[in-house]
Amino acid sequence: MKRHLISAADLTRDDAVLILDTAEEMARLADRPIKKLPTLRGRTICNLFFEDSTRTRISFEAAEKRLSADVINFTAKGSSVSKGESLKDTAQTLAAIGVDAVVIRHHASGAPYRLATSGWIDAPVINAGDGTHQHPTQALLDAFTLRRRLVGRGSATGRPTGDDTARGCAGRDLSGRRVTIVGDVLHSRVARSNVDLLHTLGAEVTLVAPPTLVPVGVEDWPCEVTYDLDGALSACDAVMMLRVQRERMNAAFFPTEREYARRYGLDAPRMAKLPDHAVVMHPGPMVRGMEITAEVADSPRCTVVEQVANGVFVRMAVLYLLLGGSEPALTQPSSRTEEK
Amino acid sequence: MKRHLISAADLTRDDAVLILDTAEEMARLADRPIKKLPTLRGRTICNLFFEDSTRTRISFEAAEKRLSADVINFTAKGSSVSKGESLKDTAQTLAAIGVDAVVIRHHASGAPYRLATSGWIDAPVINAGDGTHQHPTQALLDAFTLRRRLVGRGSATGRPTGDDTARGCAGRDLSGRRVTIVGDVLHSRVARSNVDLLHTLGAEVTLVAPPTLVPVGVEDWPCEVTYDLDGALSACDAVMMLRVQRERMNAAFFPTEREYARRYGLDAPRMAKLPDHAVVMHPGPMVRGMEITAEVADSPRCTVVEQVANGVFVRMAVLYLLLGGSEPALTQPSSRTEEK
Amino acid sequence: MKRHLISAADLTRDDAVLILDTAEEMARLADRPIKKLPTLRGRTICNLFFEDSTRTRISFEAAEKRLSADVINFTAKGSSVSKGESLKDTAQTLAAIGVDAVVIRHHASGAPYRLATSGWIDAPVINAGDGTHQHPTQALLDAFTLRRRLVGRGSATGRPTGDDTARGCAGRDLSGRRVTIVGDVLHSRVARSNVDLLHTLGAEVTLVAPPTLVPVGVEDWPCEVTYDLDGALSACDAVMMLRVQRERMNAAFFPTEREYARRYGLDAPRMAKLPDHAVVMHPGPMVRGMEITAEVADSPRCTVVEQVANGVFVRMAVLYLLLGGSEPALTQPSSRTEEK
Repeated sequence: MKRHLISAADLTRDDAVLILDTAEEMARLADRPIKKLPTLRGRTICNLFFEDSTRTRISFEAAEKRLSADVINFTAKGSSVSKGESLKDTAQTLAAIGVDAVVIRHHASGAPYRLATSGWIDAPVINAGDGTHQHPTQALLDAFTLRRRLVGRGSATGRPTGDDTARGCAGRDLSGRRVTIVGDVLHSRVARSNVDLLHTLGAEVTLVAPPTLVPVGVEDWPCEVTYDLDGALSACDAVMMLRVQRERMNAAFFPTEREYARRYGLDAPRMAKLPDHAVVMHPGPMVRGMEITAEVADSPRCTVVEQVANGVFVRMAVLYLLLGGSEPALTQPSSRTEEK
Repeated sequence: MKRHLISAADLTRDDAVLILDTAEEMARLADRPIKKLPTLRGRTICNLFFEDSTRTRISFEAAEKRLSADVINFTAKGSSVSKGESLKDTAQTLAAIGVDAVVIRHHASGAPYRLATSGWIDAPVINAGDGTHQHPTQALLDAFTLRRRLVGRGSATGRPTGDDTARGCAGRDLSGRRVTIVGDVLHSRVARSNVDLLHTLGAEVTLVAPPTLVPVGVEDWPCEVTYDLDGALSACDAVMMLRVQRERMNAAFFPTEREYARRYGLDAPRMAKLPDHAVVMHPGPMVRGMEITAEVADSPRCTVVEQVANGVFVRMAVLYLLLGGSEPALTQPSSRTEEK
Repeated sequence: MKRHLISAADLTRDDAVLILDTAEEMARLADRPIKKLPTLRGRTICNLFFEDSTRTRISFEAAEKRLSADVINFTAKGSSVSKGESLKDTAQTLAAIGVDAVVIRHHASGAPYRLATSGWIDAPVINAGDGTHQHPTQALLDAFTLRRRLVGRGSATGRPTGDDTARGCAGRDLSGRRVTIVGDVLHSRVARSNVDLLHTLGAEVTLVAPPTLVPVGVEDWPCEVTYDLDGALSACDAVMMLRVQRERMNAAFFPTEREYARRYGLDAPRMAKLPDHAVVMHPGPMVRGMEITAEVADSPRCTVVEQVANGVFVRMAVLYLLLGGSEPALTQPSSRTEEK
């Protein structure tokens, strides 16, 4: 596995499966009275957020603290710190004070890549979302959720489950599963990361978006594109609704809320067209009434809350794998160690 | 005791006395070289502040860290996160990442109640102040301060002190004490919580406020209302001055600062009308020269600094009682344990 | 040593050397797999920042966490909290909740002194920069960097190095070294603190500044002032470039950027006039192209990144010396202790 996590496209199938398996182990260890692991004690992780985020920042912070790391939060929304020069200064500061890893969210696509490859800092860099580019831990938590829902947890042992054997795949990836991603693909780093990772894990991805919200160059992405939402729904194992990012849009290009909901929103009648076993996903926060109705959002088929919970396990796994190299292997820590 | 702490009105006398006794124990344990207790190690507490607060947030954070909890601060002042929908999203996020308790301050009265009863999150919810509604830990720290000043610390043992025996009460509550609350009752969650809790603990409460700052329905509160400040002062054991919340007022309804100070402010001549043993309280921050003169604020009778100190012990007690159920009882930890 | 660190001018030579020697010890201890020391476990430190700061806040926070202290960050940029009254309220709150030390940055010169001497709080106060007055930990980290570069680390043992013996000084201070400080002296707390501390440590300081950026009363400072930058460079062991603080300036008093760079900026030809062993320092963040060219900033003679790294060790030393008095002496902790 690489030293950094910048893009879901950088992950091989083996990398991704290792992260998902490690996340299963983290989930298993969380079922104890004391959830904290001593793995990253004495390590300092900086959460460098140049863009607002509630759930991602809290999720990373919870993952870091559960691994016993020291956490330094740095939030900078002003434009002055977003200039390249300041990113360099900030990176060199973090390097010099001995930060062991940087989790970065930035409004500019490419900022995490620049941080990781600039030589300004030697620590692992984890992309927590950059512009409209990538959000790899979101894709990983989505894949983790899909694997649990569609393939089963037993896959974490590396042995194929009965269902997997029947379908002729190894049981640890998403081979043959069909995922439909719906909505504002143009502005969605979640869509980009998911297309890359789902493809790597063997799934077949179909995008459905309004014509004005399809990115240029999508024909080179490893997925299908269609405007026939109802057709795509009837044949998939999971549908992933994207958040409509009106804050990034020119109003002229955007349909009315009612029109969007009618053509691309997921309501109960449309959900009924899904196969019985299929799940509904959303990266949150949901705009209820727009891309998803409250009825669908609150149905048991909707995995939005599971996705958030799984995010902590996946982020623990990524931090553990990128930082824990010189630490004891991830095994059930002895009671002596974990009590401390 | 209930699972949440939303309103002082929800506390029975036994609940309240248990919290005050536990806070005494916390205060006693703080007198050691290492003040930290291992009680909440591995637990994660989120301070969810939708409204600015210096002293309350720092007080909770200090209490949480002294109990060895992991702390995640989340501050959101913008209006977008204050909508009900977003409170739900935030709550579900906190639930999903496995937060063990939520301390919430919100500008909307009722938000903590909604959070606790919505089913969005299963963790205990502690109200750190909601709109003009309630601020129960403030009332508890005020009651703790009053009990120490008027009844004595010996009460923490549960045995009546000499003074209490003489007055014929159990020595652990505030039976028979008279407290006068003065000022902007209309906007004061502190006043509401104190009226409820002081009544529960057996005290007699009198409110004094400008006619425009008396809430509708006050006749149903368990207290007296008078406009005769000097008369009320001469007969009380404690006077609690409220902060004038001009930021919540329509200017037309408000007297001039000079007029307010003359009629409702506490200066030295007015303080001299108090019985010798009576104390002066203020929840802070004080507007010196308005509701209280500097001379009174800095006099030994004024307990404002004690109140802040006691806030940490009371909040430790509340967190311990709501979260520590499955932990070892609150006893002097062995030196081996506390060294860790 | 005094209880507080308010001004570099308050430090005796012995105080300063003790801090530098202790910082060397901190640097040595940081070379272990687990960098954390248990020294301040159970102590609570509040970082009270009334003015923005990236590197100073992060550096203090890293130092505090590496010493195992509990950290409470409090940031208040609004004018309401910057009034004297509110500083008092905040200080009393921190005192009452039992904070063990306060690190304060304030836009008003003198605020840390007021906090330390007001009686509002009994805890040690550390000035992290106040107005245009002082920034003593910056001067200490600069002195530490200079001692390492010009005198050698061996000095930390207290034994003179060969080089020092040859120059006839004790080897633990900066006797006889010549430092030139260049730029916006008028607005620079860094310059004030460095002039004081470098003089105390035996160095000879020369200031070079545009006539409009020389402070009134500089003739009473323990240093030379000249307008001949090139002459000063040829005879010094170190040149310290100051950040141009345009945000504090009246535009009318300020030369154009090009004019400033031409007359007072450090570019490669000007750097070539320095003696071969001389170093280039900058407190950061650098305005490249103005006070320093990118070529100089990135040259091996420029210590800006070392300065940041040394900042953590120096701040650990200050916190240890001000707070650790009742703790075991700073010796290599036993492996048993440091594992915890």
